[in-house]
Amino acid sequence: MAKPVATRGFARERVLESALELFADHGVSGTSLQMIADRLGVTKAAVYYQFHSKDEITLAVVKPVFDDIEHLLRITETLPTPEARRSVSMSGLVELIIRHRRVSSVFYGDPTVHHLLEGNDEFRRLGDRLADVLLGPDPDTATRVAISMLSAGIHGCVTDPMIGDVADAELQQILLDLTKAFLDVCVHD
Amino acid sequence: MAKPVATRGFARERVLESALELFADHGVSGTSLQMIADRLGVTKAAVYYQFHSKDEITLAVVKPVFDDIEHLLRITETLPTPEARRSVSMSGLVELIIRHRRVSSVFYGDPTVHHLLEGNDEFRRLGDRLADVLLGPDPDTATRVAISMLSAGIHGCVTDPMIGDVADAELQQILLDLTKAFLDVCVHD
Repeated sequence: MAKPVATRGFARERVLESALELFADHGVSGTSLQMIADRLGVTKAAVYYQFHSKDEITLAVVKPVFDDIEHLLRITETLPTPEARRSVSMSGLVELIIRHRRVSSVFYGDPTVHHLLEGNDEFRRLGDRLADVLLGPDPDTATRVAISMLSAGIHGCVTDPMIGDVADAELQQILLDLTKAFLDVCVHD
Repeated sequence: MAKPVATRGFARERVLESALELFADHGVSGTSLQMIADRLGVTKAAVYYQFHSKDEITLAVVKPVFDDIEHLLRITETLPTPEARRSVSMSGLVELIIRHRRVSSVFYGDPTVHHLLEGNDEFRRLGDRLADVLLGPDPDTATRVAISMLSAGIHGCVTDPMIGDVADAELQQILLDLTKAFLDVCVHD
């Protein structure tokens, strides 16, 4: 009788989960395909059957975050005013980054991942669309600085180990309040 | 006649300058002592004469930033109220991060540098003192989140390539205004 084999989908998920755990411990650049295979107790060839490179695995781990950003943009891009587009996008980002808190913590600020995403047309276009709704038309320097500061602040706070003890729901409520107050006081069109 | 030799101080500075340029292009983990030697047109032994490891070079590159933080803390820790300690420290940080913009851009969010600094008692104590003046006594969760967000926002914005075209003086003025408004509106003791 043939040995039962995992479905393709199942094996993919296991590779991605092991990769994320290893990325968290060793960074993306410190993790090899061999380490992922060892953790799963399979051969490197078995991992190659699913993914042909570590870059492919990294992109697949980050893909659900970008799918959710795409979904958020499809909603916010139809809103009637620049203010509504900006504030709903920024609130949506808070929710989304907290929902993907573990992936965000591993990848935020990682130069290897940054270079990989910059070289990917699909992700870069998504970044441009996100910048468009957050900045609005013809942003002045003060608006560009404020939006850069707010975006980095949300990301950096959610991935801050000193904030790791704050539960997702509480963190989300505090960050939504701070984001709203910051946009009200600091960003004027 | 003996060949003129560079003074110890001069050679040190050249090593640190070359290292910073290479770190900017290749990241800290992608830079080797051999690459630093090649860039200077000297042997690896000549670099070893000044520094015994890449970690030592990395710490020396970041040291002026931490010296300035130490200096800032000596001033702010003597201020009479928690509010004054927090607001003067945060404004001082804005000024300091912009002054060291190039070093900040290379090192901010780099996991290699993060681990290196975490393992260094002197830097860790400085980080604890900085957290004390920024957070104040017995901070609640909302204050912890707000300070984490503001600190990450300042760092992330100054090192954001999208903001790279904004001159230091203008960036400093905008960030000081944003920081003051954020503390006024978002942080309550």
